Amino acid sequence: MTATTVGFIGLGIMGAPMAAHLVAAGYDVVGHNRSQAAVDRLVAAGGRAAADIADAVRDADVVITMLPDSPDVEAVVLGDDGVFAHAKPGTLHIDASTIRPDTAARIAEIGAAQGIRVLDAPVSGGEQGAKDGILSIMVGGAAADVEAARPVLETFGRTVVHVGPAGSGQTVKAANQLIVAGTIELVAEAIVFLEAFGVDTEAAVRVLAGGLAGNAILERKAPGMLARSFQPGFRIDLHHKDMGIVLAAAREAGVVLPVGAVLGQLMAAARAQGDGGLDHSALLRGVERLAGRSHQEPRNQEQE
Amino acid sequence: MTATTVGFIGLGIMGAPMAAHLVAAGYDVVGHNRSQAAVDRLVAAGGRAAADIADAVRDADVVITMLPDSPDVEAVVLGDDGVFAHAKPGTLHIDASTIRPDTAARIAEIGAAQGIRVLDAPVSGGEQGAKDGILSIMVGGAAADVEAARPVLETFGRTVVHVGPAGSGQTVKAANQLIVAGTIELVAEAIVFLEAFGVDTEAAVRVLAGGLAGNAILERKAPGMLARSFQPGFRIDLHHKDMGIVLAAAREAGVVLPVGAVLGQLMAAARAQGDGGLDHSALLRGVERLAGRSHQEPRNQEQE
Amino acid sequence: MTATTVGFIGLGIMGAPMAAHLVAAGYDVVGHNRSQAAVDRLVAAGGRAAADIADAVRDADVVITMLPDSPDVEAVVLGDDGVFAHAKPGTLHIDASTIRPDTAARIAEIGAAQGIRVLDAPVSGGEQGAKDGILSIMVGGAAADVEAARPVLETFGRTVVHVGPAGSGQTVKAANQLIVAGTIELVAEAIVFLEAFGVDTEAAVRVLAGGLAGNAILERKAPGMLARSFQPGFRIDLHHKDMGIVLAAAREAGVVLPVGAVLGQLMAAARAQGDGGLDHSALLRGVERLAGRSHQEPRNQEQE
Amino acid sequence: MTATTVGFIGLGIMGAPMAAHLVAAGYDVVGHNRSQAAVDRLVAAGGRAAADIADAVRDADVVITMLPDSPDVEAVVLGDDGVFAHAKPGTLHIDASTIRPDTAARIAEIGAAQGIRVLDAPVSGGEQGAKDGILSIMVGGAAADVEAARPVLETFGRTVVHVGPAGSGQTVKAANQLIVAGTIELVAEAIVFLEAFGVDTEAAVRVLAGGLAGNAILERKAPGMLARSFQPGFRIDLHHKDMGIVLAAAREAGVVLPVGAVLGQLMAAARAQGDGGLDHSALLRGVERLAGRSHQEPRNQEQE
Repeated sequence: MTATTVGFIGLGIMGAPMAAHLVAAGYDVVGHNRSQAAVDRLVAAGGRAAADIADAVRDADVVITMLPDSPDVEAVVLGDDGVFAHAKPGTLHIDASTIRPDTAARIAEIGAAQGIRVLDAPVSGGEQGAKDGILSIMVGGAAADVEAARPVLETFGRTVVHVGPAGSGQTVKAANQLIVAGTIELVAEAIVFLEAFGVDTEAAVRVLAGGLAGNAILERKAPGMLARSFQPGFRIDLHHKDMGIVLAAAREAGVVLPVGAVLGQLMAAARAQGDGGLDHSALLRGVERLAGRSHQEPRNQEQE
Repeated sequence: MTATTVGFIGLGIMGAPMAAHLVAAGYDVVGHNRSQAAVDRLVAAGGRAAADIADAVRDADVVITMLPDSPDVEAVVLGDDGVFAHAKPGTLHIDASTIRPDTAARIAEIGAAQGIRVLDAPVSGGEQGAKDGILSIMVGGAAADVEAARPVLETFGRTVVHVGPAGSGQTVKAANQLIVAGTIELVAEAIVFLEAFGVDTEAAVRVLAGGLAGNAILERKAPGMLARSFQPGFRIDLHHKDMGIVLAAAREAGVVLPVGAVLGQLMAAARAQGDGGLDHSALLRGVERLAGRSHQEPRNQEQE
Repeated sequence: MTATTVGFIGLGIMGAPMAAHLVAAGYDVVGHNRSQAAVDRLVAAGGRAAADIADAVRDADVVITMLPDSPDVEAVVLGDDGVFAHAKPGTLHIDASTIRPDTAARIAEIGAAQGIRVLDAPVSGGEQGAKDGILSIMVGGAAADVEAARPVLETFGRTVVHVGPAGSGQTVKAANQLIVAGTIELVAEAIVFLEAFGVDTEAAVRVLAGGLAGNAILERKAPGMLARSFQPGFRIDLHHKDMGIVLAAAREAGVVLPVGAVLGQLMAAARAQGDGGLDHSALLRGVERLAGRSHQEPRNQEQE
Repeated sequence: MTATTVGFIGLGIMGAPMAAHLVAAGYDVVGHNRSQAAVDRLVAAGGRAAADIADAVRDADVVITMLPDSPDVEAVVLGDDGVFAHAKPGTLHIDASTIRPDTAARIAEIGAAQGIRVLDAPVSGGEQGAKDGILSIMVGGAAADVEAARPVLETFGRTVVHVGPAGSGQTVKAANQLIVAGTIELVAEAIVFLEAFGVDTEAAVRVLAGGLAGNAILERKAPGMLARSFQPGFRIDLHHKDMGIVLAAAREAGVVLPVGAVLGQLMAAARAQGDGGLDHSALLRGVERLAGRSHQEPRNQEQE
């Protein structure tokens, strides 16, 4: 039996390990990326190089796109020489990028009109989750297409959940980013509050994590926050983009997000004050600044 | 060897099961409560009845208070006929109530002046946690006193953590209530957002709970929120009191809580709009009202 | 000397009286509007009818557009059969609509490339101000063009101020809408607060208006607010659009608006709760709802 | 006819010019102040010196207190050797301080029980308004007492308005401080927004002041804000105290202040970041900091 051919466009920090998992699982992966170095690494890992989008898509059964933002996806998928211009009817297109839900829904509609089955399948879990192949994947689209995509998605995802029609994956990802930003901010406000009173914050984090206040940020991010270590991780700049998505979608839908709106401003403030390249847990620095309690510059800024 | 005698004042929803765990562990528990029925239940469980505070305190090695609010604790502990008026020197006083950190620190100072060892030891975990004896307990005071109290506290607590000097337990509890209120609100905003887009919210909650957005509210409260079932649990009225504590403490300390302040208003709004007797997860109803998407009246209101 | 010919596109609630002032001042006004009734009224007032945009623009020395939103202006000005397709070089185009500053700047750039002098000149003062010819006009563009436009603008404006290069008029209008929304909200919060304490609110408004708290909302809107009379005026729906403009522009520029962001949510909530057709002073109803103090339905809803 | 004797306690920045106006109007003013220098200045202006509170109150027909905060007023009025311990029945006590409305109401009740007629009469207009004798005065108490006090109040006030029963003056003053803080913040957000876009801000302020966005802050404070001149005026520290009063009162009354709560945090942040001694218009500096656009240190800090 011939291996399924997967065209993979976007071999960045997230895309590269995802494509590598596909190769490891026996898929025939044809990869394309703007910078050639990433393509070379895929070839070294056992994949094949595509010279352009057409080349990656032409013979693929499945096409995966993993790109930074809505305009990138629109250009790569809908452009004159893009995915839909070259994909054969019946192709399964999985967009794993985090983009606007309405853009995702529109792309699915355009795809359907030419016989391409489109899923939006944004992921959560970060670079480490991609490397370990344990991403959470929230999938929007037709149920049959989600089932068809499941073996592919499970090569890099541990939790693959169908959450509704086209665009729903992006909607859930937007909600995910809202909760993550808010939880970081809550933990940050709690830490600055506790420090102001001279409490043993490591003990406090331990007891907080064990009760109804418990959350993944306390477990995974609080130690770094206490140490003022803000190496990404997931950059403020990207989370700022995502807050823009969730707030714009809420506005469209007539949903009011009192805390979400404040988070949008706090994320924007972090960026405006020069912390855009730090991990999103650096929202802590904003809480410190408001209280006039700033620490020294963070010790582990991104090395770029 | 004679059993340690524990005076227990405040046998309400939380205090009653805590006292029962002490009895079950072999302590000699002398209980007092404003309403006699609660005392009778303690006696039925194997404890002894105290006619008044003096009676509960006079021969006790340890005195535990579990009362609604700062003024109650001040009256019961510092009043003319209160705990400190009758406790013998060397008594260990553990206040398990949730009160203002500065009040707790002041009580500890007054106690110390007359040879009473005072701990503030507020609990987290709710009625169910008290019944199951698995509360999280955040303890402020002298290390030696915390160690002396540990066997007592562990009869009803699973996690007993010393977080700093007198008042620190209350400070951590305040931070706990900040994070809990905020996480409920974030989950509520996410649910209303997802419902507005027709997403499968049960699937969404499942995938959200598995990643960096994961928290105890998604696990324990989201099912009830999706079903609009808001039976307490922990009432909005009480959480409103607690938000008052954390915001006042932050103000005193010069700490700015941008999200905490919004939560204070949202909790006040829930109460002003008649939801004070519902579980704090009913913050969801406020998000619905803001979006003009109100459901029917909640199905499981507290029967009082 | 021949009269200056002014093409006027958009003869709505604001545009109609503005065009009438031009006619009264002796200008040769050629008007176009989607609905013919408005054009007929202009002709009755002494203007001339244009069958389409081309007809209004072809022989005009000055073209004024007064349209609801950014996409309308883009379509009318930049469309295949739009203003720029038919205007002769040297034409002075004045857009009096309230739109996005970046859209205004882009239109000016496109106009300049074909020799058309473009000004953005949004107005403040409402329907009454337009009728009375006493609008405040904030103008962006080249100084010489502003001076050339001044006689035209002063037929319907009392205060005509050049505030900077192209787009600046819209930027100042955005700031204007931010302050207006915020002042209404502040007066609303004050009124509900005062009513809760049984204060004589009419006396209170009088004394508040006389000091550092004094503002145009207290003078012009507070009486209606106290009477719960919310007949537009300027509708919540439109102010919601304008809050979208100011928040998007601030986001682009990296400016954080802590109060502005809250106002965006409160305006969205008013709309979501069915008050979109009321005057923006109906933000008061949102403050009442949050406090569980709602009055009867407003007495003077817009009759549409 | 003998002159009315006025005991005046609290001869600070505000109290001194108020007492001087009384002297100038022919009243027999007996003044007391903690520091003797202020008393000496009153004597030089034609008043008499009181050695202590008793001395100022004993023979007075009217007693005016002008003190910093609620605890000061409670100590001076209700203390063992305070105003009420020495005032003769029928004395008219006017408290011009800005304090908590509930404290004012309680003092009035205690006064009434011993035949003292109490008014709360906080003032607005600042040091300049006190010097010029043009303060706005919001008076709570019985109508007959307000009329009796009117000639006295009009020596230093231009607008004297009876706003309701005891405490109402303070309630209106609280609302005044809410609106003033909010208007400053709105103007600050607008200025930083306009500067980010390179708009001519002086022209912008001129046009904004003329329309529905017009307010006393644009007129009196904006020029200083544009010049980054923050010499008090009214200090952030004092406005922070006042925000505490309005937010606590709203909480008691079940009134939700979405913008008021944000303002409370912004004022606290300004103070925490070291701006407590600057004029409240220095809220502008907080908006700049959030946007990463801080100017140099302000040029006109208070010299203390």
